[in-house]
Amino acid sequence: MALDNYTTIIAVASIATSGITIGIGVLGPAIGEGRAVATALSSLAQQPDASATITRTLFVGLAMIESLSIYCFVISIILIFANPFWNRAIT
Amino acid sequence: MALDNYTTIIAVASIATSGITIGIGVLGPAIGEGRAVATALSSLAQQPDASATITRTLFVGLAMIESLSIYCFVISIILIFANPFWNRAIT
Amino acid sequence: MALDNYTTIIAVASIATSGITIGIGVLGPAIGEGRAVATALSSLAQQPDASATITRTLFVGLAMIESLSIYCFVISIILIFANPFWNRAIT
Amino acid sequence: MALDNYTTIIAVASIATSGITIGIGVLGPAIGEGRAVATALSSLAQQPDASATITRTLFVGLAMIESLSIYCFVISIILIFANPFWNRAIT
Amino acid sequence: MALDNYTTIIAVASIATSGITIGIGVLGPAIGEGRAVATALSSLAQQPDASATITRTLFVGLAMIESLSIYCFVISIILIFANPFWNRAIT
Amino acid sequence: MALDNYTTIIAVASIATSGITIGIGVLGPAIGEGRAVATALSSLAQQPDASATITRTLFVGLAMIESLSIYCFVISIILIFANPFWNRAIT
Amino acid sequence: MALDNYTTIIAVASIATSGITIGIGVLGPAIGEGRAVATALSSLAQQPDASATITRTLFVGLAMIESLSIYCFVISIILIFANPFWNRAIT
Amino acid sequence: MALDNYTTIIAVASIATSGITIGIGVLGPAIGEGRAVATALSSLAQQPDASATITRTLFVGLAMIESLSIYCFVISIILIFANPFWNRAIT
Amino acid sequence: MALDNYTTIIAVASIATSGITIGIGVLGPAIGEGRAVATALSSLAQQPDASATITRTLFVGLAMIESLSIYCFVISIILIFANPFWNRAIT
Amino acid sequence: MALDNYTTIIAVASIATSGITIGIGVLGPAIGEGRAVATALSSLAQQPDASATITRTLFVGLAMIESLSIYCFVISIILIFANPFWNRAIT
Amino acid sequence: MALDNYTTIIAVASIATSGITIGIGVLGPAIGEGRAVATALSSLAQQPDASATITRTLFVGLAMIESLSIYCFVISIILIFANPFWNRAIT
Amino acid sequence: MALDNYTTIIAVASIATSGITIGIGVLGPAIGEGRAVATALSSLAQQPDASATITRTLFVGLAMIESLSIYCFVISIILIFANPFWNRAIT
Amino acid sequence: MALDNYTTIIAVASIATSGITIGIGVLGPAIGEGRAVATALSSLAQQPDASATITRTLFVGLAMIESLSIYCFVISIILIFANPFWNRAIT
Amino acid sequence: MALDNYTTIIAVASIATSGITIGIGVLGPAIGEGRAVATALSSLAQQPDASATITRTLFVGLAMIESLSIYCFVISIILIFANPFWNRAIT
Repeated sequence: MALDNYTTIIAVASIATSGITIGIGVLGPAIGEGRAVATALSSLAQQPDASATITRTLFVGLAMIESLSIYCFVISIILIFANPFWNRAIT
Repeated sequence: MALDNYTTIIAVASIATSGITIGIGVLGPAIGEGRAVATALSSLAQQPDASATITRTLFVGLAMIESLSIYCFVISIILIFANPFWNRAIT
Repeated sequence: MALDNYTTIIAVASIATSGITIGIGVLGPAIGEGRAVATALSSLAQQPDASATITRTLFVGLAMIESLSIYCFVISIILIFANPFWNRAIT
Repeated sequence: MALDNYTTIIAVASIATSGITIGIGVLGPAIGEGRAVATALSSLAQQPDASATITRTLFVGLAMIESLSIYCFVISIILIFANPFWNRAIT
Repeated sequence: MALDNYTTIIAVASIATSGITIGIGVLGPAIGEGRAVATALSSLAQQPDASATITRTLFVGLAMIESLSIYCFVISIILIFANPFWNRAIT
Repeated sequence: MALDNYTTIIAVASIATSGITIGIGVLGPAIGEGRAVATALSSLAQQPDASATITRTLFVGLAMIESLSIYCFVISIILIFANPFWNRAIT
Repeated sequence: MALDNYTTIIAVASIATSGITIGIGVLGPAIGEGRAVATALSSLAQQPDASATITRTLFVGLAMIESLSIYCFVISIILIFANPFWNRAIT
Repeated sequence: MALDNYTTIIAVASIATSGITIGIGVLGPAIGEGRAVATALSSLAQQPDASATITRTLFVGLAMIESLSIYCFVISIILIFANPFWNRAIT
Repeated sequence: MALDNYTTIIAVASIATSGITIGIGVLGPAIGEGRAVATALSSLAQQPDASATITRTLFVGLAMIESLSIYCFVISIILIFANPFWNRAIT
Repeated sequence: MALDNYTTIIAVASIATSGITIGIGVLGPAIGEGRAVATALSSLAQQPDASATITRTLFVGLAMIESLSIYCFVISIILIFANPFWNRAIT
Repeated sequence: MALDNYTTIIAVASIATSGITIGIGVLGPAIGEGRAVATALSSLAQQPDASATITRTLFVGLAMIESLSIYCFVISIILIFANPFWNRAIT
Repeated sequence: MALDNYTTIIAVASIATSGITIGIGVLGPAIGEGRAVATALSSLAQQPDASATITRTLFVGLAMIESLSIYCFVISIILIFANPFWNRAIT
Repeated sequence: MALDNYTTIIAVASIATSGITIGIGVLGPAIGEGRAVATALSSLAQQPDASATITRTLFVGLAMIESLSIYCFVISIILIFANPFWNRAIT
Repeated sequence: MALDNYTTIIAVASIATSGITIGIGVLGPAIGEGRAVATALSSLAQQPDASATITRTLFVGLAMIESLSIYCFVISIILIFANPFWNRAIT
């Protein structure tokens, strides 16, 4: 089935939004993780004995921050592969 | 049922808004969490004995900040899967 | 009832505004809470004895800041589920 | 009564403005409160004896800053539920 | 009396301006007050004996800064409830 | 007298300008006053004996900065209540 | 005399420009004066004996910075009350 | 088969989005990784004995941050080579 | 002589440009002068004996910076009162 | 074969996107690498004995950051020389 | 001679460009000169004996920076009073 | 052969993109290289004995950062002198 | 010869570009020179004996930075007085 | 030969791009060189004995940064005097 006017607009909106969402959605997490890793490294250099606690706390923190960016990725993938508006449009 | 002009516009607005909401909504929480985790790590290195208190306070703080980003995710998901305007439009 | 031109415009405005409101409304609170939590952690590491006062003050402060973001969430939810303009438009 | 062209425009302006007002109106107060709480916490850690004075001053300050954001919330709610322009338009 | 084209435009301009004025008008005062309160708290911790002078100067300063934001609120309320252009338009 | 096309445009321009002028016009003074008050407080804590000189200089400085924001308020009020272009338009 | 198309455009341009000029024109001077006053206060606290010289230099400096903002105010008032283009248009 | 109007629009949206996504998506990770590497280097200079722990933590951190940018690259490649909207449009 | 289309456009461009020129033209000088005055004050507090040299250098520096803003004011006044394009247009 | 309307639009989108992608895509990596190199140099000056470890870690880090910019370059080259949308358009 | 369409456009472009050029062209020099003067003052306070060398270097530096802003002023004046495009247009 | 509509658009896109690509593409590398050179100079002043290692590491780092800007230059030159879209358009 | 449509557009583009080029082109050099002069002054105050070397290096550096701004001035003057596109247009 | 529509557009694009390219292309290098020169001066003051090495490294660094800005100048000059698109358009 060829596209008509309405489905094309929905496709364009889905494409543009999916890209922009993940594009601007990794900016904050990347800066936040960079800061966390950087502090972890200088803390390790300053207090090598606390290495276990620091590493564990770092990984929990990174997981929390990474989850923020996963939210964006999930929305982005939903808009491409499981978009309810698109599904309705093409049925 | 094929789409008409009005439902297409609502679909486009929902798609674009859901992506932008979560996209810009993780920027602040990510920076805030990065800062909190970073300070937690340097505090752990400086005062390993207060590890229990620091970790507990960190987790409460991360949960508070994460909740801000959950608000955005909730709105974003509502706009895709439980959008009252869309539901009305297609009935 | 299918939509007409006027209700569609109101629906689009409600969708876009609800997302943008919460999207930009968590930016400030997230940065503010991140700063508060970070300082709390370094204060705990510096003065573990004042832990009770610090924790209590932190929670009051976080609640104040969180309330700012709740304002945005309330407006956002009102615009989606209890929008007086939309209610009038569809009656 | 269905909407006409003029009332639709007023409704859209009210919806968009109410959201943007509170959305950008919490940015400053959130950063300001975060700064105030953060300094309060480090002051408490540094001078636990002045705890009463610091807490009292903090609460007065937070109330002043919160009031700024309340102004925005009031305007936002007025525009949704007690909008004189809308009231006139629909009578 | 139903609205005509001219009064609608004036209403929209009044709604949008009143929201934006208070929205951007609290940004500066909130940051300024946050800074003043923060410094007051660290000064109290550093010199508890000067508590009376510091508190008095803080309140005078907060009043001055709050007045800036009151200017915006006044203009905002005038535009909604005592707008001379609107009053003329609807007579 | 009902409005015509020309007076409506002038009214809209006056409304929008009066709000934006005071809205962006308090940003700078608020930050400047916040800085001045903050430094005054830390100076008082550091040198309580110079309290008279510091307070006097602070008030002169605040008055100078407040005057900047008064300029904006004056222009804003003139545009609403004593606008020569509007006065001519409606005569 | 009612307005015609050309005089309306000139009036709108004058209104908008006069507000924006003073609105953005106080941003810099306010920040500059805030900085000058803040440094004066900390200098007074540090060297009370030099109070006469500091105060005199501060007032000269504030006058210089205030003059910058006066330029904007003058242009703003000229555009409202002594606008040569408007005067020609309405003769 | 030559292109028609609808497929062209989808192609343009895919091209533009794929480029912008990866373009703005590497900004945050690059700054974050730069910070992490920089801190690792100064930590190594300060505490050469902790070299093994620092290097291992650095690589885990870099992998986490790199993954953020991989998300963008994946979306970018999907939009060019496995775009479901394009695939449907050209069948 | 009433205005025609061409002279109106030139008048509008002159009005808008004259305001914007001085409006953005005082931003830099104001910040620069504020910095110079602030450093002069702290230098006076630190080295009261060098008061003559500091004051003299400050005034030369302020004059140089003020001259930058005078350039903008000159262009602004020329565009209002001695505009060669306007003069030609109305002859 | 001369171009038609559709292929021209795709060509323009490809040209503009390929340039902008690499243009904004080197901003972050360049700042990140500059920071890494700068810290490496100051670490070498501070701890010449750790030169081997520092240099090795620096090169691994630079390679990671450079890879981010390579992603952009790859997308940019694909859009110019191996663009699937263009290939289809011209067949 | 009255204006025609082409000369009006050139006049508008000249007016707008001349104002914007000098308006944004003094921003950088003003900040640069402010920094130079500020450092000169603190250097004088720190090392009064080097007053001759400092003053001479300062004046050379200010002249260099002022020259940058003179370039903008020259272009601005050329566009108003010696504009070759305008001269050709009106002959 | 004279140009037609399609080739003109491609030429304009190529010209504009080639300039903007290199224009914004040198911003990051220039700041990064400036930082690297600055740190190299202060490291040399602090540890002249490590001159050989510092200089070698600096040159490798500068080459890496310069390469980022070369990517932009290559794309820029390709778009002007070896543009496949242009080559096809003019054949 | 009066102007026609094509030469007018080229003239407008040349006027606007020449002003903007020099306007934004002095921003960076002015900040860079200000920084260089400021550091030179504080270095002179700190190490008067190295005055000859410092002054010589300063002048070479200022010449290098000034050259950047000369590039912009050259392009700006070429566009006004030796514009090959204009020369062709008017022959 | 007079200009036609297509060559005019190419000329305008070339003029605007050549100016903007060099205008924004000197921003980064100017800031980078200013930083390098400033650090060189403070290093000379701190370690006059390393004058030869510092000067040599500074010149190599300045040459590298200057080269970035030369890339922009080259593109800018090519677009004015050796523009292949223009050359084809006018033959």
